[in-house]
Amino acid sequence: MNKIIVLDKRPLGRPDITDFRFIQEEMPQITEGEILLETLFVSVDPYLRGRMNDAKSYVPPFELNKPVQSTIIAKVIGSHHGEFRDGDFVSGNLDWKEYQTSSGKGLIKLNAPLGDLSKYLGVLGMTGMTAYLGLTEVGKPNAGETIVISGAAGAVGSVVGQIGKILGCRVVGITSTDKKADLLKSKFHFDEVINYIKTPDLKVAIKEACRAGVDIYFDNVGGEISDAVLFNINKYARIPLCGAISLYNEVNPVGPRLQPILIIKRAMMRGFLVSDFTDQFPAAIQQLAFWLKEGKISYAETIVQGFDNIPQAFIDLFDGKNEGKMIVKVK
Amino acid sequence: MNKIIVLDKRPLGRPDITDFRFIQEEMPQITEGEILLETLFVSVDPYLRGRMNDAKSYVPPFELNKPVQSTIIAKVIGSHHGEFRDGDFVSGNLDWKEYQTSSGKGLIKLNAPLGDLSKYLGVLGMTGMTAYLGLTEVGKPNAGETIVISGAAGAVGSVVGQIGKILGCRVVGITSTDKKADLLKSKFHFDEVINYIKTPDLKVAIKEACRAGVDIYFDNVGGEISDAVLFNINKYARIPLCGAISLYNEVNPVGPRLQPILIIKRAMMRGFLVSDFTDQFPAAIQQLAFWLKEGKISYAETIVQGFDNIPQAFIDLFDGKNEGKMIVKVK
Repeated sequence: MNKIIVLDKRPLGRPDITDFRFIQEEMPQITEGEILLETLFVSVDPYLRGRMNDAKSYVPPFELNKPVQSTIIAKVIGSHHGEFRDGDFVSGNLDWKEYQTSSGKGLIKLNAPLGDLSKYLGVLGMTGMTAYLGLTEVGKPNAGETIVISGAAGAVGSVVGQIGKILGCRVVGITSTDKKADLLKSKFHFDEVINYIKTPDLKVAIKEACRAGVDIYFDNVGGEISDAVLFNINKYARIPLCGAISLYNEVNPVGPRLQPILIIKRAMMRGFLVSDFTDQFPAAIQQLAFWLKEGKISYAETIVQGFDNIPQAFIDLFDGKNEGKMIVKVK
Repeated sequence: MNKIIVLDKRPLGRPDITDFRFIQEEMPQITEGEILLETLFVSVDPYLRGRMNDAKSYVPPFELNKPVQSTIIAKVIGSHHGEFRDGDFVSGNLDWKEYQTSSGKGLIKLNAPLGDLSKYLGVLGMTGMTAYLGLTEVGKPNAGETIVISGAAGAVGSVVGQIGKILGCRVVGITSTDKKADLLKSKFHFDEVINYIKTPDLKVAIKEACRAGVDIYFDNVGGEISDAVLFNINKYARIPLCGAISLYNEVNPVGPRLQPILIIKRAMMRGFLVSDFTDQFPAAIQQLAFWLKEGKISYAETIVQGFDNIPQAFIDLFDGKNEGKMIVKVK
């Protein structure tokens, strides 16, 4: 039998384990032009929360009683398709199923050994490219500038910081535990890290960590952390909006109005998705792979074992339980 | 004797007539290298409200018991300065005084007849350039796009709309009276105008006026009007933040958090000041003067008579009592 995870209810606020339901079906059979895939690694990402609402967004909402989808790395274990053979590894936007068939459309073949596959969900995948393209195309850093990164120990944030350092910037991270703060300093070479949970006045802490002010704020979280950073931005600051994880579970969140700050500082705030830059993906991957090979960037992964733990791994993102990329290893 | 208007108290919220004080002093005398100026026209502008707070902004705050300043057109009535002679008209950031001396620094000579002078405070001055450069440099309009303008009947908004039309866009204005709405349609050729005071649901009204969504939102007001527009923006929308008059009198205003909308729509919001584009002033003035001469743009002025009415004219901006540029004619 084949296990499948479907969306049972649309989450109200924070997603709950009961919003998901496990079902079983017969093993799928392939027909001409199809391949059979065995799920190896499942990426869980904050943006999936948006697709669980019944609201128009940049991607259509998930349907109730249908499988949830995310980026998955799978192994071809049966092929009636000319371009794929047994044993190939592929990556694509696939269903949360142990086994599934595919026409091969939208799948990317990964020419890498099994041990290296998971990095194609992280540093060499969407999150690495989000970090690289968001920072360079939206943030447009200049050497000597100060970059503040929220959600700094996440899959995107940890890469943004390292690229900032490569480009000659001062990099300050905001995170939620001392353990993550240590990791950001020791492994990712951030100049300063603020544990916002332990900080009585975040606005003051950012001011002290950024004596020359904030030139770029790479925002993964939104909410009160972002408010505190915005009070410290410099003239002509740039604010790439990559995510707003602190707001995804809120209904109609309110906060300080930002327009007066943006006018006074002549600052620019821009939401982006990595898919806005598809024509730059090959160059971005090449650059990231080069830095990785040279040892100029590292990456962190939080690997959760077992298909049954996919929903909980997703929920844990909202408590910041991951260091770096959160991945579920199925096989 | 010479009349002067000083800032007596820093306004709390909405400015009040008692925040200003009239004083008298002896007529000023010029020494070598100076000119004596007689004030003719005084520009009153929303941004002056910010300078009345004791807060660091893009310009230093006004000092208590010192003259308020704004852009003024004056006549040279005495000169010990090689570059200016009696009868010259000049424009510059000057004190709210009937008469004052100047070293000439920062003043621009205006080679225009008396009857044309006031337009150098509006369509051919800072407000016209703000409209032109804010729309073209920040909004970056493409023919066929929809532009929504708040504060549409103001000095900046009315010019933005006309430039939008010249560039082939559909232009929708938001204003506060039917009289202004009529003016925007009949004189400035806006495609649609919404009187937000009379509109029960502004969000719906904007949706109906912008069937193809909002590509550019030229924001002069901030606050709830802007919230309603932001709910209707298209993917890749651009939001030049020119002013936030609805918020200038508020202490710590709050509203919906904007980051999720900006991410979903991959939209860009950028605060700007006309002074960010000083190197483009000559070209901008030339373009505006050309369109004005060709009859492609018109302008509106609300002229208030008398030096004593400067503070009230300024206060009236916050009630939207002006159509187009608010100017006080002193002589």
